[in-house]
Amino acid sequence: MSGSKKLAAPGLLKVCIVGSGNWGSAVSKLIGANIINAPEFDKTVKMYVFEEILDATFGENSGKKLTAVINTKHENVKYLKGHRLPDNIVAEPDLVVAAQDADYLIFVLPHQFIGKALDNLTGKIKPSAVGMSLVKGLYNPEKTNIRLLSTVITDKLKIPMGVLMGANVANEVADGLFCETTIAFKELKQGQIFKKLMQTPDFRITVIKDVTNAELCGALKNIVAFAAGVSDGVFGEKTNTKAAIIRLGLMEMMKFAEQFFPGGTPETFLQSCGIGDLVTSCFGGRNRKVGEAFAASPAKTLDDLSKEMLGGQQLQGARTAEEVNYFLSHKGKEKDFPLFTAVHQICKKEMAPNKLIDAIRQHPEHHHFRVSVHGFNDERSAAGKPVFIYKNLLQRLITTIVTCSHLATTLAKHLLGWEEGILYFGANEPLGQGIVSLHPDMVDAINTYIHSDKVKLNGPPLISIGQAINGTLN
Amino acid sequence: MSGSKKLAAPGLLKVCIVGSGNWGSAVSKLIGANIINAPEFDKTVKMYVFEEILDATFGENSGKKLTAVINTKHENVKYLKGHRLPDNIVAEPDLVVAAQDADYLIFVLPHQFIGKALDNLTGKIKPSAVGMSLVKGLYNPEKTNIRLLSTVITDKLKIPMGVLMGANVANEVADGLFCETTIAFKELKQGQIFKKLMQTPDFRITVIKDVTNAELCGALKNIVAFAAGVSDGVFGEKTNTKAAIIRLGLMEMMKFAEQFFPGGTPETFLQSCGIGDLVTSCFGGRNRKVGEAFAASPAKTLDDLSKEMLGGQQLQGARTAEEVNYFLSHKGKEKDFPLFTAVHQICKKEMAPNKLIDAIRQHPEHHHFRVSVHGFNDERSAAGKPVFIYKNLLQRLITTIVTCSHLATTLAKHLLGWEEGILYFGANEPLGQGIVSLHPDMVDAINTYIHSDKVKLNGPPLISIGQAINGTLN
Repeated sequence: MSGSKKLAAPGLLKVCIVGSGNWGSAVSKLIGANIINAPEFDKTVKMYVFEEILDATFGENSGKKLTAVINTKHENVKYLKGHRLPDNIVAEPDLVVAAQDADYLIFVLPHQFIGKALDNLTGKIKPSAVGMSLVKGLYNPEKTNIRLLSTVITDKLKIPMGVLMGANVANEVADGLFCETTIAFKELKQGQIFKKLMQTPDFRITVIKDVTNAELCGALKNIVAFAAGVSDGVFGEKTNTKAAIIRLGLMEMMKFAEQFFPGGTPETFLQSCGIGDLVTSCFGGRNRKVGEAFAASPAKTLDDLSKEMLGGQQLQGARTAEEVNYFLSHKGKEKDFPLFTAVHQICKKEMAPNKLIDAIRQHPEHHHFRVSVHGFNDERSAAGKPVFIYKNLLQRLITTIVTCSHLATTLAKHLLGWEEGILYFGANEPLGQGIVSLHPDMVDAINTYIHSDKVKLNGPPLISIGQAINGTLN
Repeated sequence: MSGSKKLAAPGLLKVCIVGSGNWGSAVSKLIGANIINAPEFDKTVKMYVFEEILDATFGENSGKKLTAVINTKHENVKYLKGHRLPDNIVAEPDLVVAAQDADYLIFVLPHQFIGKALDNLTGKIKPSAVGMSLVKGLYNPEKTNIRLLSTVITDKLKIPMGVLMGANVANEVADGLFCETTIAFKELKQGQIFKKLMQTPDFRITVIKDVTNAELCGALKNIVAFAAGVSDGVFGEKTNTKAAIIRLGLMEMMKFAEQFFPGGTPETFLQSCGIGDLVTSCFGGRNRKVGEAFAASPAKTLDDLSKEMLGGQQLQGARTAEEVNYFLSHKGKEKDFPLFTAVHQICKKEMAPNKLIDAIRQHPEHHHFRVSVHGFNDERSAAGKPVFIYKNLLQRLITTIVTCSHLATTLAKHLLGWEEGILYFGANEPLGQGIVSLHPDMVDAINTYIHSDKVKLNGPPLISIGQAINGTLN
């Protein structure tokens, strides 16, 4: 199932694009052109197209099947008008026929069609296939839980999955305008193969390993973009206020990822899938636009505006805000995410748009240190129990290592006095974590303690607590 | 000189605002109001005002001194028209008289007046005073070196300095619109005192310790904002391309800070002084605006546009790009910062604005792993030499700790084969660092090696190299 095994296999590797909307068609331009120069690949790329009969507005094509038009005129006249698709892109209306022989599957269907497509594909694709999802959004059929779409696909089809997420407006990519994107694969090598299929001089791809955070970025940024639109609608283009909303939104995205999907790396939020896409969405994009209109039109519901502005399509930011809110309220964590929570309440008309600022004025970002204390009982370490102190936000990144169990006790006592979360004990499990308030005097005291000869350090501290807990009291 | 000693001293603490332009006047509104409720402070706040006689355009105030108008009408009619300043803000035209008794000095002068002001103040202020700079920009009288203004002030006046930097348009702050900002002080306690003087329900302050990166953010973001303006001028409002420019600009800001001003923390770039201010500047702000006009008007020089659009004032982004370019070219590092370099060349008409994308198409961000290998010889560590492997970008954050000198040798050999920088040896000094290309196979090999029983780990690896080197090959 690894890339190198594939390369050694006889025959040519096949690619299938599952979906043919605006983004899928734009991506087919890249892949169709690149694959010509990739000798290990079959030159024909099948693209699954949900069959439609074109209506009277399509002139000479009216009454024809969309697949027939794509395969004869090499243009997706409905979803990517004016762009010639490469001749080796072959539209196929039968999903199973399109996908069954593929070694590489690229999922780029509208969110709501994924479930049915997976039902159809189960047991019908190559067991050795590898997939990549371009679909933005979360998956929470049970309301109280949230899953990543890539995980849902892996569970259903039993294939490894990566994602492509970035600051990419489909029409701009199709026009060949310069942009960046992020591919995330647990196996970097798989990501490199998809990069080879898609990168051009104007479509610059960085491959990372952190699928989870990349996918979360793609979904959560739509909530922030809606909030940015509300800011535009309420305050006009006041850049200070909007910048604060965008930044606090990013902080909530990072906190959400870290608390509920641990194991990712915070630098992912610095990739194109993170701040790149966030900036694009907060200044362009439909979520911002509808957010602005919603704030400026108190008489209208979101459904009204979706009908007027999106042809009835559900607004992704509002749906994601609702899914996230179900999840957060189930966990009792709504107040830790005041921006996410406010967006949901605004969408539901439970909060007036001009109250958004009141909701984030006392944001935890301005109030608290975030600290975790972990007890770590590792048999290979003879010197005692190391204690890891780090900011919750940048979990596993800013680390002070000491090996004195007395210090562990002292710190746990001091820090966990303000503890909000659950307290765990046991080898390699957190002693506790939560948002704590810590007076600067205490930071100084702990620092002095760490650097005193009372503490036997297992090597020098990499960073002192004063640096690690780089925050503030209100 | 510490805050607690000050609090114990007899008499009330005095604050002086050194400067009274647009931003200084806006800040005086916050301080004048807050200080009323701070019992340890003298209620009178002196504000140094560069004396001017108001001309005929000032109606009933024409012919009057600016200080006289401020002290009688409580309005800075020239630089913050329409806002009443608190009655306890007292304009003072003599810099030494204004500053000599102050315990807390807030520097908010135009960049070009700092040098002369420091000459005047040397030896004239309280030795126990503490200062904070709101001035954005770098300081490089020798062209080949770059210094932070806060460092220059400390060296000259021998007082500890912090900075306030954030996404703050002066008029929006004066209007009481919601925004965030960042105060950075090595001694958090000092920062807390300034926070107390300035925070309001609509001006939200986070105090951090990392003065260096906060100040660098305030200067370097103007280069990126100019590039964002060029993008607007060349491509119109194409959000994909602009998002890529902003993100790559942020990456260069972080790399510049890390390479030339080590010791800061990368999270500072996530504060208001970082992405907050960057976003504000790339969508609003004069650097963006002039960049756009410059790209759209090939016949005009930057001087022409400065005259037309800024009343002849020098554009901060262009000046900073020039200062940074002198410095980078002196170090032979221009090619590592293609966006910064391109902005300078565009400003100098050495590059056409529409070539900006060509300059960043092969950006190092899309090509390389950044890796450092440090040899660490610590007497307290009995187990051998720990080796620190981390991404250059997030120096000291992502760390693999192993204690096998054979591994150190192997890694140094593998990694430093592509080494670009200088190779150091010695206790607690880097073995070498630089941008290296690393094939995914090698990442796998190193990972396997680290986790094999050939390596004696001094505790479990916090993070494996595959996670640490979370990058890609082109």
